[in-house]
Amino acid sequence: MIETYQARCQARVDAALANLFQPSHPELERLYQAMRYSVINGGKRVRPLLVYAACEALDGDVGRADGAACAVELIHAYSLVHDDLPAMDDDDLRRGQPTTHKAFDEACAILAGDGLQTLAFEVLADPRGNPREIELRLAMITALARAAGPAGMVGGQAIDLGSVGRKLDRQALETMHRHKTGALIEASVQLGALASGQADDIALKALHQYAQAIGLAFQVQDDILDVESDTATLGKTQGKDQANDKPTYPALLGLDAAKAYAQDLRDQALHALRAFGDAAEPLRELARFIVERRN
Amino acid sequence: MIETYQARCQARVDAALANLFQPSHPELERLYQAMRYSVINGGKRVRPLLVYAACEALDGDVGRADGAACAVELIHAYSLVHDDLPAMDDDDLRRGQPTTHKAFDEACAILAGDGLQTLAFEVLADPRGNPREIELRLAMITALARAAGPAGMVGGQAIDLGSVGRKLDRQALETMHRHKTGALIEASVQLGALASGQADDIALKALHQYAQAIGLAFQVQDDILDVESDTATLGKTQGKDQANDKPTYPALLGLDAAKAYAQDLRDQALHALRAFGDAAEPLRELARFIVERRN
Repeated sequence: MIETYQARCQARVDAALANLFQPSHPELERLYQAMRYSVINGGKRVRPLLVYAACEALDGDVGRADGAACAVELIHAYSLVHDDLPAMDDDDLRRGQPTTHKAFDEACAILAGDGLQTLAFEVLADPRGNPREIELRLAMITALARAAGPAGMVGGQAIDLGSVGRKLDRQALETMHRHKTGALIEASVQLGALASGQADDIALKALHQYAQAIGLAFQVQDDILDVESDTATLGKTQGKDQANDKPTYPALLGLDAAKAYAQDLRDQALHALRAFGDAAEPLRELARFIVERRN
Repeated sequence: MIETYQARCQARVDAALANLFQPSHPELERLYQAMRYSVINGGKRVRPLLVYAACEALDGDVGRADGAACAVELIHAYSLVHDDLPAMDDDDLRRGQPTTHKAFDEACAILAGDGLQTLAFEVLADPRGNPREIELRLAMITALARAAGPAGMVGGQAIDLGSVGRKLDRQALETMHRHKTGALIEASVQLGALASGQADDIALKALHQYAQAIGLAFQVQDDILDVESDTATLGKTQGKDQANDKPTYPALLGLDAAKAYAQDLRDQALHALRAFGDAAEPLRELARFIVERRN
């Protein structure tokens, strides 16, 4: 079921994303190619799925959530392009394909990432694919900026880079993940809820608790997969975190305790949705999927 | 006079900018230091000046333009941090000081630039220092995103990098500058006009013509200064454009014709403001200053 829902969300957001890369001038062709390459790549679109599923959980029309779905994926894509750069994580492969700076060049990858970030905010401000109510669009922009910026995702990447070779305790590791991946996952759920036009404070709070739990579960499971999967299944170099002496949950808690923790987080996520009806089923299925996935 | 006005705008925007770099977590201290270092640097604040002067030209309250003034400077600052990177222009000095990746490191500079861009949109969405009318804030976000993104400034940098060693004609050179520097200068004037809350279509069109002319004049004069000034006056390596075989107006038109062109652009800018009263005097003085400046 989640696979069907995921495929539907993927098709929907991919169609919307594909419209964004029309160069306004022939001289810009290569930059737009690099941006397109960085985004249109068969990605699973977990964050857009969260946007749509949160919108539907509140009985919203997903046609109002296309902009938000694109925006969170653009932010995610830009962060991967920059994270892969030689000065950062120095990765040559991403989903089994050359990373953007390998397929193009470093300067082009820096600029493509920069442009993808700008595009995210342009898309959210646009009335098409977003709520007509301008106060909702503005609230979405604020939420995405906070989640993506130095107090969120960018900050998390800075903490991560500063932590290599350092001994992080569990609290410090959680601070890093809450910034690096958690903030954007929380924003995806929040933007979907806002896009529905039906979010009250109680629903937003419950969805925030759900998002916090799955955001952390996602990361714990990523760490587990880095230990357990082989490079082919993972589409990136296996054991890289360990090789880089990066702090991980299995290293900190042991593998079995890390798995138990991921399952506990899944249960917390499901508990947060207890007042929601069947419309929240995709969110519930995703919480289960995150902990069961193999790549 | 323009010096007095410039100093006033500089003090005003610097006070507003200084508030933006309070780390939300101790682990983020270094990232915020790098962002602060990239922004609080004694810069002339030409773009914030344009925001304030355009707001005042329409009898607007500059208290409504602080957000826009910060936002355009944050975008400008981020673009310099990324442009200076080794994979881009590879500059060690900026205003006579080590560039961000020299003072910190490359990864930190990439992230600081990323965070500064996000901050620009967060600041514009905030009711403080911006118009209370949310449709105006949204219009400002759209204008800034278009100007800063792949169809604007980022695109211009891509064209610039693609043009090194190529023989550009005058039209191609102008396309590059219209994207790389012109778009953000035009957006600065537009944001200031929007911030005033008093901009009608006729005023916006006149201000757009003004901004186009000074944007280009700024660049022509930059090229002239690269030929004429020494490194100490310029605060960056003199003759660098020539050494890199970058296309410039003096190379294309000859030095005297380039100077005449800059003056013609200044006159076009002044002509565009002919219907404006004394309140537009700072904009007029700036048009004169751009062509007369020595660094």
